[in-house]
Amino acid sequence: MAEKYLSTNPYIGTRDFYPEEMRVRNWFFSIMRKVAESYGYEEILGPILEPFDVFAAKSGEEIVKEQTYHFTDRGERHMAVRPEMTPTVARMTAAKLGELRMPVRWYSIANFMRYERPQKGRLREFWQLNLDLLGEKGLASDYEIVSVAVSLLKAFGADESMFKVKINNRRFYNDVMREVLKATPDEMKSISKAVDKRSKLPREKYEEWLKESGITQDKIDGLDRIFGMPLKELLGKIPSDSAGGRELNELFGLIEKTGLAPYCEFDFSIVRGLDYYTGNVFEVNDLNPENRRALFGGGRYDNLIGLFKNAEVSGIGFGFGDVTFQNFLEGHGLIPPEVHNNETVLITVFDDVEYAEYIKLSDELREKGIGSVIYSGENKKMGRQFQYAESAGMDFAVIMGGDELKAGKAIIKNLSLREQRETARNETAQAIFNWRKEKLRNTLT
Amino acid sequence: MAEKYLSTNPYIGTRDFYPEEMRVRNWFFSIMRKVAESYGYEEILGPILEPFDVFAAKSGEEIVKEQTYHFTDRGERHMAVRPEMTPTVARMTAAKLGELRMPVRWYSIANFMRYERPQKGRLREFWQLNLDLLGEKGLASDYEIVSVAVSLLKAFGADESMFKVKINNRRFYNDVMREVLKATPDEMKSISKAVDKRSKLPREKYEEWLKESGITQDKIDGLDRIFGMPLKELLGKIPSDSAGGRELNELFGLIEKTGLAPYCEFDFSIVRGLDYYTGNVFEVNDLNPENRRALFGGGRYDNLIGLFKNAEVSGIGFGFGDVTFQNFLEGHGLIPPEVHNNETVLITVFDDVEYAEYIKLSDELREKGIGSVIYSGENKKMGRQFQYAESAGMDFAVIMGGDELKAGKAIIKNLSLREQRETARNETAQAIFNWRKEKLRNTLT
Repeated sequence: MAEKYLSTNPYIGTRDFYPEEMRVRNWFFSIMRKVAESYGYEEILGPILEPFDVFAAKSGEEIVKEQTYHFTDRGERHMAVRPEMTPTVARMTAAKLGELRMPVRWYSIANFMRYERPQKGRLREFWQLNLDLLGEKGLASDYEIVSVAVSLLKAFGADESMFKVKINNRRFYNDVMREVLKATPDEMKSISKAVDKRSKLPREKYEEWLKESGITQDKIDGLDRIFGMPLKELLGKIPSDSAGGRELNELFGLIEKTGLAPYCEFDFSIVRGLDYYTGNVFEVNDLNPENRRALFGGGRYDNLIGLFKNAEVSGIGFGFGDVTFQNFLEGHGLIPPEVHNNETVLITVFDDVEYAEYIKLSDELREKGIGSVIYSGENKKMGRQFQYAESAGMDFAVIMGGDELKAGKAIIKNLSLREQRETARNETAQAIFNWRKEKLRNTLT
Repeated sequence: MAEKYLSTNPYIGTRDFYPEEMRVRNWFFSIMRKVAESYGYEEILGPILEPFDVFAAKSGEEIVKEQTYHFTDRGERHMAVRPEMTPTVARMTAAKLGELRMPVRWYSIANFMRYERPQKGRLREFWQLNLDLLGEKGLASDYEIVSVAVSLLKAFGADESMFKVKINNRRFYNDVMREVLKATPDEMKSISKAVDKRSKLPREKYEEWLKESGITQDKIDGLDRIFGMPLKELLGKIPSDSAGGRELNELFGLIEKTGLAPYCEFDFSIVRGLDYYTGNVFEVNDLNPENRRALFGGGRYDNLIGLFKNAEVSGIGFGFGDVTFQNFLEGHGLIPPEVHNNETVLITVFDDVEYAEYIKLSDELREKGIGSVIYSGENKKMGRQFQYAESAGMDFAVIMGGDELKAGKAIIKNLSLREQRETARNETAQAIFNWRKEKLRNTLT
């Protein structure tokens, strides 16, 4: 045929989720929901499109200028497909300021688009758990957010050998740059960009980058000394009234008194790319030697509501993407095999039974909470029907031919054991339920 | 201040979902998932962006030309924010044809964008349950899809007084138009559009519309006679080899033999707007006198895969939107009050207790499956703390001051009963768990 067919590939950098992939996602998102809700966070959601200006004002330059999908709608509005969630959270908070009970604990699980060169851990469409605590400036909320982050990973069986939460503070960082390195504001800007990429770049590239921005060898050496210092030492070198220093110190004070210490460490190289962070910032790193990279990160932002209202609401939160997270789970072998199970029963069909009888049987099973499918292939040989059920990962098949029907009976077949049992027709659902319970008990003992 | 603030409104025709709204959505989508899975449907998902051509070829003219959000990406690709799901389902099926176990039973819950004039039941961003059965031509699959649709509504407590499934067939419709009304292909096109709007338009407007398209009064009267005829009578007026007639007849044959009959009826005016339907089509109507309108609809499409591959896979399915559905639930009073419950515990705080003690307590509660929040307001008066918990809809508060801590105790307060009980500090979680069980038992008896 000379016709031209459309491509069956999903758009570059996006994914199709078939049932197998979807089961894994649903499994990990449902655990994330449980953890978030155990800390009193409530789920919210906003629209996939937001006015471009919402991002232009506050998201990082790279995101807005290079990565955002934006276009003009039929009403001449400049719209963007959301590249991140925080501006939407800020808008929604501003819209109901005064009505909302503060502090607000919100989370969302949503999709985002960014122009990216697709690569491992980075795609154009990704999903993110976003979690924010708004309206609370105390360090207890910084602690809480770090605690949620750690609990999220622990809930999947991850331990301190698998990840590390690296913490720094934007204000503290600036104070150290100014007081210890004696950097000018212009130099600080160039240094921040290099520092953000420090662990990813070869040493020569890193130095080259700094020198091109006019940073002297002296200061590059000074930076190395700073990176070698523990938090306490750096705190001693800046004025004791440094707000950032106090914030970091208080946060680590709480961390050391509770169970979080083994999961957290101070890391001066954490600055985070988003422009709106103002206080403590953190990044969770995968410790898998084959996959060393930031899993996700977050921090405190003080001025975001200011875009929408003459008001200040301090917030702290993080965004946790599905792509890097799935790499993490796979890399550490944390996806349990049960995630792939399919608890659906096949109702096999015979030509000597009216089809409506199978419909009735499947209705009855469903009413008792047992999902079922009536076989529908043209080839109705029993072997073919069982093969279909097995390839679909189903655990049971029900056999009800003309003889069984007349005798008021049915046969249930356990497909993994390849055993079958006879049951009264009207007790089929109960018999499957009981046999599944037996299987479960046997697995557990 | 002279600054200009950005609007806090969501983009026109889209919604912000605050926790209260989100709880309702999560509740109804989780029931939809359960029903779909009880029929053996598996969840899938595709990207929010698809190539424009995927829709241009097969979606209805109105959707593509007037309603689709589309733009050119940085790689000069003409992309659309998906206005519907079926083309994505077709693409995903085509991509794995040969690998997939047929028939495929898939569902998805996803968001879509269309340029609409926002009004009751119609928004620019909406969410839809899409459910499709692919690779099966037998009438059993048409029956199954109607059965899923009815089960979905019944799962929410809806009965036959609240909704009706109206069924027709595209091929049968054409046969009747040609054989009984003697309409030409051009006339049929114009008539279809008018018929689709027949119940929504005043009679004069409907006639005017038809006459403007050159339909004679004779044929308008003929149409009225056709609309008055039951299925059996119309079947007698067309050739007995009409495939559409046979499909409709067989489907109603099955419906009459099972429990679906009270929910379904034949309705010749159902033609459905989407161009790709080829066989049986249906529409589920809300019978609420204040909200009479189509809740959702679907039908059989035979040629959709053909866009992507030289292959034919017949499919049948429907898309069920959240906006009309929520109107339906509210209109019939089907949202139970428990949906709004918040099972989170407030941990009250005292100045004479170190904050880390409250962190430990909340960690312990969470480990036992009890979600909790540590109070964080500046005003720490007990009354203020309880008031916060009550306004958040929380059911319990834990009181642990310096005296309790020293004595190894805690007090749990049931906020709805305004009663409190003392418990051992390390049995707090169990005590809350037990009291909740008591409450539940009392509600049930």
